[in-house]
Amino acid sequence: MKDFDFNSDLGLYINSKTNLPTTLNFDYENSLLTLLDQRRLPYECKSWSTSNWKEAAYEGIKNMVVRGSQAIGCTAAYTFLLASNSYQGNLDDYVSFMEKVYVTILNTRPTAVNLSWALNRIMVKIKSNLDKSLDDVKEIVEITADRIFKEDLVINSEMRKNGLEYIEDGDVIFTHCNAGSIATSYGGSSLSILVEAYAEGKNIKTLVKETRPRSQGYKLTMWELDQAGVPVRGISDNMVSSAYKKYNATKVFTGADRISRDGYVANKIGTYDLAIIANYFNIPYYVAASYSTLDLDILGLDIPIEIRNNNEIFDPYKFEIFYKKHNKLLSENAADNWPHNNTNIKLYNPAFDVTPANLVEKIILDIGVFSPAEIGNLSEGKINNIVNSIYTKKFS
Amino acid sequence: MKDFDFNSDLGLYINSKTNLPTTLNFDYENSLLTLLDQRRLPYECKSWSTSNWKEAAYEGIKNMVVRGSQAIGCTAAYTFLLASNSYQGNLDDYVSFMEKVYVTILNTRPTAVNLSWALNRIMVKIKSNLDKSLDDVKEIVEITADRIFKEDLVINSEMRKNGLEYIEDGDVIFTHCNAGSIATSYGGSSLSILVEAYAEGKNIKTLVKETRPRSQGYKLTMWELDQAGVPVRGISDNMVSSAYKKYNATKVFTGADRISRDGYVANKIGTYDLAIIANYFNIPYYVAASYSTLDLDILGLDIPIEIRNNNEIFDPYKFEIFYKKHNKLLSENAADNWPHNNTNIKLYNPAFDVTPANLVEKIILDIGVFSPAEIGNLSEGKINNIVNSIYTKKFS
Repeated sequence: MKDFDFNSDLGLYINSKTNLPTTLNFDYENSLLTLLDQRRLPYECKSWSTSNWKEAAYEGIKNMVVRGSQAIGCTAAYTFLLASNSYQGNLDDYVSFMEKVYVTILNTRPTAVNLSWALNRIMVKIKSNLDKSLDDVKEIVEITADRIFKEDLVINSEMRKNGLEYIEDGDVIFTHCNAGSIATSYGGSSLSILVEAYAEGKNIKTLVKETRPRSQGYKLTMWELDQAGVPVRGISDNMVSSAYKKYNATKVFTGADRISRDGYVANKIGTYDLAIIANYFNIPYYVAASYSTLDLDILGLDIPIEIRNNNEIFDPYKFEIFYKKHNKLLSENAADNWPHNNTNIKLYNPAFDVTPANLVEKIILDIGVFSPAEIGNLSEGKINNIVNSIYTKKFS
Repeated sequence: MKDFDFNSDLGLYINSKTNLPTTLNFDYENSLLTLLDQRRLPYECKSWSTSNWKEAAYEGIKNMVVRGSQAIGCTAAYTFLLASNSYQGNLDDYVSFMEKVYVTILNTRPTAVNLSWALNRIMVKIKSNLDKSLDDVKEIVEITADRIFKEDLVINSEMRKNGLEYIEDGDVIFTHCNAGSIATSYGGSSLSILVEAYAEGKNIKTLVKETRPRSQGYKLTMWELDQAGVPVRGISDNMVSSAYKKYNATKVFTGADRISRDGYVANKIGTYDLAIIANYFNIPYYVAASYSTLDLDILGLDIPIEIRNNNEIFDPYKFEIFYKKHNKLLSENAADNWPHNNTNIKLYNPAFDVTPANLVEKIILDIGVFSPAEIGNLSEGKINNIVNSIYTKKFS
């Protein structure tokens, strides 16, 4: 790959401009999947490898060595390939074997849309080539998995290119959560626009929100920006107004989980709060994402909100209790799980919120840049035409 | 004390309506100071006692068994009393002994205004009574320390009374940080208004922000409200807009660290963000505090911002690393202190922010309720008159 060098310690390619690794790599010769182990970031940068598809499914995907929708899609495709490569029987049983594998992988992260999208794409190829030999079908699986990975690389580079024109020399930019390289195969989503702008010589600074409860800003975004050399100022989620005043912030950039027909943006919890404060201070809010986050069938206010486990809020306190008991700063019979058994205290842990279109300046996609109002003019047909023309241009 | 029962396990009085303890107690017979150990909350409710003034100064105040400006003031007064009680020499050396003690206590928390205020008040009494016997002077110290504690109780009850009329049946109220009972002798600041309203039968619910980096909302405010039986919904700091929509929030109540002549409010970092979002959704923001937070000599934009140690942001991650290494989820050589040694990543940790007057609905003080614009009409003379009339009414 252009601009990438293979790092044999890590088992992943590293981009020479940004110093960031690809999130995954498949060694076709040895049928070995390697993933950047995101559970260890930022404290250590290690990878995790397997040739066993079940390990890839249960440890890699379910136990979250990998995270981020596009990265999960690519990993699912390669997990499917590992299963295919391991298969030893005849072609008739191959299809039912792969169907069982399909269900197993799908159940690792049932709500991850890119996961089923990647598996379906390979399954369709299998079923439409059953007139061929088993070896030929296995090769088709390999080609399709490889294509899914490479398309992700291409589409990400297109989004970065579209976003670059919205970054100016001297910008001081708020980010929230991790819409970063490591949520994709490499270099996807809004953070990568900032990384690319900096790598191309634009003098920018970033303000990174911690992003409680899961702290993706602190753990992943700060790490990514640091790898790439981009100046980082880490803040807790309570410091937006203060940091705006102190550092003269100029823009907000986030990713998106889902963008509705009316230009509303579902993204990590806290985005809506950030957008309101940005609006108050008259700084523009840019959303950058892949076209796969568009949902033209839904209106913003109808987007269902996933409520996640309260442990996500509680975890840092569990670690604190463990540390303090270990160091005799709390007695042994102090509560381990406060306030879990408390009937009077409830927690609320929505995974994301929905920012209304009027707070969004531009929606930067791989297929082009749109005002929120223009999203409604898109159609699946139009989008497919744009995507195909990008692929054709890049792959020909 | 009316409505309070002594809890001999805890060594503190407990209010029978709210189930909340006083923050401190002095046993005059045994010269024993008992403090609620706030470092252990919410995981365990224990107290900490000492008869030794140096222990009270270094462990009690400096190492933060106690926190909160008014509670620190009362603790300083009783620490001074412990020193006085322990003194064995003659009257001439008594003054220079107490002057050394004064400096020692002052240096435990040099920026705590209430600490020096309490010590000065006792020192003035000592110096103006040197014509009396040592025993008489020691008794004057005891009476003055007791008076500082009781005045705090009285002034707090006055503020609760003033605040009550702003709470309506059915209110759903955001709070931030801990402007609570345990920051004072008992029942002080904005949280106590909510506790009192609930104890008096008003059907209210509360939305408690975690308040990173030090999590006083999660650790102290949730605990206090739970003790008093007030329904609590805990949220991370990123969930204000979402919680507003989900729970139909009606009001915001916070305390204040400093209120300027032009009605600007310095309070725990994150208050400004919360006030902006409340303003966006048209819900009123009430500040409740003691008159001692007024600073009529300063304008809001001139209030200096204390920048605190980055460890406060980093602590939960330090605990996480300890836990994960202990449980082999990270390797032994993973970073213990990321991103501390990183030259590219800086953190920003302001202790508070300053919310402009136009975002504040009312400022509820013990000496009355004011619009932000009315603060400028107050003077030290007017305030002293109001305070004296409150004391006279209560103590006569």
